[in-house]
Amino acid sequence: MGFKGTLRPGLVQLRVLDFDATLNFYENILGLNKVCETKDGRICLKGYDEFDHHSVTLRKTDKAGLDFVAFKAADADTVEEIKDKVVKFGYKVDEVPANSDQPGFGKRYGWTICTGHRFEVYSEVEPAEQQPMLHNPDIWTKPPRGMRAQRMDHFLLYGPNIMEAERFCQEVFGMYVPEVCNLPDGNRLATWITSSNKPHDLAFVEYPEPGKLHHLGFYLQDWADVGNAADWIALNRLKLDIGPTRHAITRGLSIYFWEPSGNRIETYAGGYTAYPDHPQRVWDADQVGRGLFYYSGELIPSFLEVVT
Amino acid sequence: MGFKGTLRPGLVQLRVLDFDATLNFYENILGLNKVCETKDGRICLKGYDEFDHHSVTLRKTDKAGLDFVAFKAADADTVEEIKDKVVKFGYKVDEVPANSDQPGFGKRYGWTICTGHRFEVYSEVEPAEQQPMLHNPDIWTKPPRGMRAQRMDHFLLYGPNIMEAERFCQEVFGMYVPEVCNLPDGNRLATWITSSNKPHDLAFVEYPEPGKLHHLGFYLQDWADVGNAADWIALNRLKLDIGPTRHAITRGLSIYFWEPSGNRIETYAGGYTAYPDHPQRVWDADQVGRGLFYYSGELIPSFLEVVT
Amino acid sequence: MGFKGTLRPGLVQLRVLDFDATLNFYENILGLNKVCETKDGRICLKGYDEFDHHSVTLRKTDKAGLDFVAFKAADADTVEEIKDKVVKFGYKVDEVPANSDQPGFGKRYGWTICTGHRFEVYSEVEPAEQQPMLHNPDIWTKPPRGMRAQRMDHFLLYGPNIMEAERFCQEVFGMYVPEVCNLPDGNRLATWITSSNKPHDLAFVEYPEPGKLHHLGFYLQDWADVGNAADWIALNRLKLDIGPTRHAITRGLSIYFWEPSGNRIETYAGGYTAYPDHPQRVWDADQVGRGLFYYSGELIPSFLEVVT
Amino acid sequence: MGFKGTLRPGLVQLRVLDFDATLNFYENILGLNKVCETKDGRICLKGYDEFDHHSVTLRKTDKAGLDFVAFKAADADTVEEIKDKVVKFGYKVDEVPANSDQPGFGKRYGWTICTGHRFEVYSEVEPAEQQPMLHNPDIWTKPPRGMRAQRMDHFLLYGPNIMEAERFCQEVFGMYVPEVCNLPDGNRLATWITSSNKPHDLAFVEYPEPGKLHHLGFYLQDWADVGNAADWIALNRLKLDIGPTRHAITRGLSIYFWEPSGNRIETYAGGYTAYPDHPQRVWDADQVGRGLFYYSGELIPSFLEVVT
Repeated sequence: MGFKGTLRPGLVQLRVLDFDATLNFYENILGLNKVCETKDGRICLKGYDEFDHHSVTLRKTDKAGLDFVAFKAADADTVEEIKDKVVKFGYKVDEVPANSDQPGFGKRYGWTICTGHRFEVYSEVEPAEQQPMLHNPDIWTKPPRGMRAQRMDHFLLYGPNIMEAERFCQEVFGMYVPEVCNLPDGNRLATWITSSNKPHDLAFVEYPEPGKLHHLGFYLQDWADVGNAADWIALNRLKLDIGPTRHAITRGLSIYFWEPSGNRIETYAGGYTAYPDHPQRVWDADQVGRGLFYYSGELIPSFLEVVT
Repeated sequence: MGFKGTLRPGLVQLRVLDFDATLNFYENILGLNKVCETKDGRICLKGYDEFDHHSVTLRKTDKAGLDFVAFKAADADTVEEIKDKVVKFGYKVDEVPANSDQPGFGKRYGWTICTGHRFEVYSEVEPAEQQPMLHNPDIWTKPPRGMRAQRMDHFLLYGPNIMEAERFCQEVFGMYVPEVCNLPDGNRLATWITSSNKPHDLAFVEYPEPGKLHHLGFYLQDWADVGNAADWIALNRLKLDIGPTRHAITRGLSIYFWEPSGNRIETYAGGYTAYPDHPQRVWDADQVGRGLFYYSGELIPSFLEVVT
Repeated sequence: MGFKGTLRPGLVQLRVLDFDATLNFYENILGLNKVCETKDGRICLKGYDEFDHHSVTLRKTDKAGLDFVAFKAADADTVEEIKDKVVKFGYKVDEVPANSDQPGFGKRYGWTICTGHRFEVYSEVEPAEQQPMLHNPDIWTKPPRGMRAQRMDHFLLYGPNIMEAERFCQEVFGMYVPEVCNLPDGNRLATWITSSNKPHDLAFVEYPEPGKLHHLGFYLQDWADVGNAADWIALNRLKLDIGPTRHAITRGLSIYFWEPSGNRIETYAGGYTAYPDHPQRVWDADQVGRGLFYYSGELIPSFLEVVT
Repeated sequence: MGFKGTLRPGLVQLRVLDFDATLNFYENILGLNKVCETKDGRICLKGYDEFDHHSVTLRKTDKAGLDFVAFKAADADTVEEIKDKVVKFGYKVDEVPANSDQPGFGKRYGWTICTGHRFEVYSEVEPAEQQPMLHNPDIWTKPPRGMRAQRMDHFLLYGPNIMEAERFCQEVFGMYVPEVCNLPDGNRLATWITSSNKPHDLAFVEYPEPGKLHHLGFYLQDWADVGNAADWIALNRLKLDIGPTRHAITRGLSIYFWEPSGNRIETYAGGYTAYPDHPQRVWDADQVGRGLFYYSGELIPSFLEVVT
């Protein structure tokens, strides 16, 4: 009711290098809740303000990065429609059975897009045990911890051929593109894409190596919580990339830093209320430093170079 | 792309008692921009962060209140579909020609719903002269003024038979209902309804007299701007109703006060990110005081008694 | 070095009705740290940002209120000078030996002022075990809890003859008076008094009954933390008096509420930077509603009626 | 009453390169009020929340930097005492007659300290025309503009022999030293010094070249206003040095940037409440990066290299 295509990114599986420091980060510093551990030792987490079973799965291995991202659609019919569109778009789809690798999740379809990332779509997922209250609700079941992350929000992916990826998200997922950054030759340097009023559900930067994760973003309440997140970064000696700052792109308030396994995390708040009838914002590549880091106006080398 | 049915409430026409104090309020205190004056002397305004021609029209008369609210749909086909559904729902539809009473607006369809309020739907509207920037945009074209209202956000309407109005918004507009408040007999006391990720585009409270406006809400950036709005209320001796406070319902941060003509205004920020797949939050009528005014936990008489 | 007379209020002893709910409030909701328990069962607490042994002692009895307030002076000589001035002012002074009723505190002198409150002065006190860091310090030793109260800040006392009390604070403690509220007959209705840049260390309201406590104020970082305190009030069903609001008097951002034993607590932030060379701000009694509650502009009956 | 020695830094004279862009910055972006222009073309400014005649004088010349800083003492006797102490300390004192170069100011004494900076002391100064309200005051006479700077707050000076300068401030001005940073050989790298509850009124960094200004700091309300200041920096294309960030030293929230003439400005908020009885915080030189820029933990070269 109200949405076509996908609703939002609902699940990511991250590769992490260890569980002690990393899990401490996600639970006690970022403030996610641990939901369960799978039989093969992966750990499922969720934000306190999310309703579904879990949104982040951590898999321990020897190389940080992203296994896949999965998008939730409103119902099973939409999932089938999307699957058909994926096939028609030219990607090969496989099916992940219900309750296989992701506890609580129904059937998912998956495929690899041109940028080398595995995308999935699903609609069925069990409600979380630790849902927000529903009957005469308080704003919190329990007070948030640490950085007070509310929910998984978005991700930025690096890979080749992002104009095709952008077209894919529009044609197959029914998303729209609030902002783009163009190279002088008219090609995209970067694109920000969304299903809803969020200014981005995902974004791409053109990059020769496929399948890379630039950052995973979590939503905070506001600028005050962005400041609080920075205090926690400092207290815990996490490695800061940049921030607190504002993106002119999306207008969000942001900090980039690295979790103990080396994946870049963004704690993000604000951002404008996007609508599909709003005109697209367009950035020239030589202005993207200011678009990304509005206060300094300058790109930092790590933004373009460090990915997992 | 991404939305079915209506996108959002896009235009309201308010009745005001004078133009000197009232217009000073909307322009210099609330911070809207004046767009134009109609030939018959109405004044059109918009928030600095809105893209369409205008969103608020003030009509001078001897009784404050609401003339109509109009909802924007994504395209002309959707407008026709909605018109057909309105007729099927049983309301009588009229047509307002393009560029008649509202400069810059295309054709609108209008009808009166069971609560006594005139609703309209449209898709065509000219872009505002004072749009947000689109090419290498700054976050503001000019710094916001006064309370720094970004855009018209929502309204709360009082009238009879709100369960029908709620059903209308779902069936005709494709909206969904994130929260309701029920009386012990199972009837609605109040309902909060949205097209999108906003926790409400509009709300209704059951009330014997038809066509009443409880408040018109404008969106602020965050709790800091809610505090700034309160400072402006005090400095300008506006009459406060309640706040700064938080609603547990929608989780928004809020102040209610009256503009010089006696219409209640809300300066509102925050609120959760709503999705149609989230379960509905349900309030018991005896808990609605806490739902509305989370900090005091108590209903104030003016909330139920003062409408325009 | 830099201050004459007293430095600040450094210790209060409060009467509370029980220890379960009340201590839970002070430790886990307000966020003070428990320091120790005395042999006769009183409990000593401090804010995370205070350096001295403790600042709040809770004594369990059958009537809420205030046993005494104690002011810290810079050194032992100043304490003796103040004692002499108290005697000369006409109050009878007694001596509380070091390490008697208050663990960690050196000798205190005490006396009752005209308003019926017991005042004390001291300079010697052991450092707290849980001090803020001193060598390459982080901003917190451990992250603050709950309402994140930093320190005991001030108190408002109700009693008779406050003009004498005001004169006492100036002549004996070397304080100054940034704001007063006068009755039409020229007498004080209220007075705000400080030793330093804080806009008040204590305040008095004229009241026929002696020795009453209106509220005890704790300092928060800013308006964002005032909002957070309100969320904790709501979540824990504490009884709100008023707020979040701003005082025009002191310009502080404030919430008044009652802790479980019925003592009124203020969570307070902001306030102007006071200096003794600044002219005094003067309020007319008929404007004090706006002075106290800047946003509504109206006095609430409980402010004048409910004291412990 | 309550303070010994100096109250605060009350006046600085800055050298600027032009008046068009620079004055636009101080008035319309930083938000100071223009008070007057001297006969020889200097411009006097003040923060909206300051009571004295003016606090910043701009002198147009061909090299940015600082002409002098002047400290206010509580009364004329204290000024004479300080003058005598300066002479005894070994500096040569001159006298600036009342109403000579600084309109509204009484007699000042001046001298050059070991770091090569001219210091002055005074007590007599006319009240500002644009004072904060005193009778039933609103929090603002007029709403603040731009970055909403409330008042001149502090400065950081670079020059040789700062241990002597620190001792001077203590012995002559009666100040105390909340924080220091020591080199491995026990010498000071930097020192933060105050008269009052502010964590610093001034600071020094050891530097071979005398008489240099690192930055002039202005006080903002809170972290929300620090964010707003950053938005104004970006919108006006001012050159950012670093921030928004937090100093662990003083705990203040900060942005450093350069005004159009090249003087570094800090917009600063927060900071702990300092007291002379609190123990001194001590930084090791190899940790000062984290002390200055708590979030990144790293010194930036410009901090040590760029001064005016």
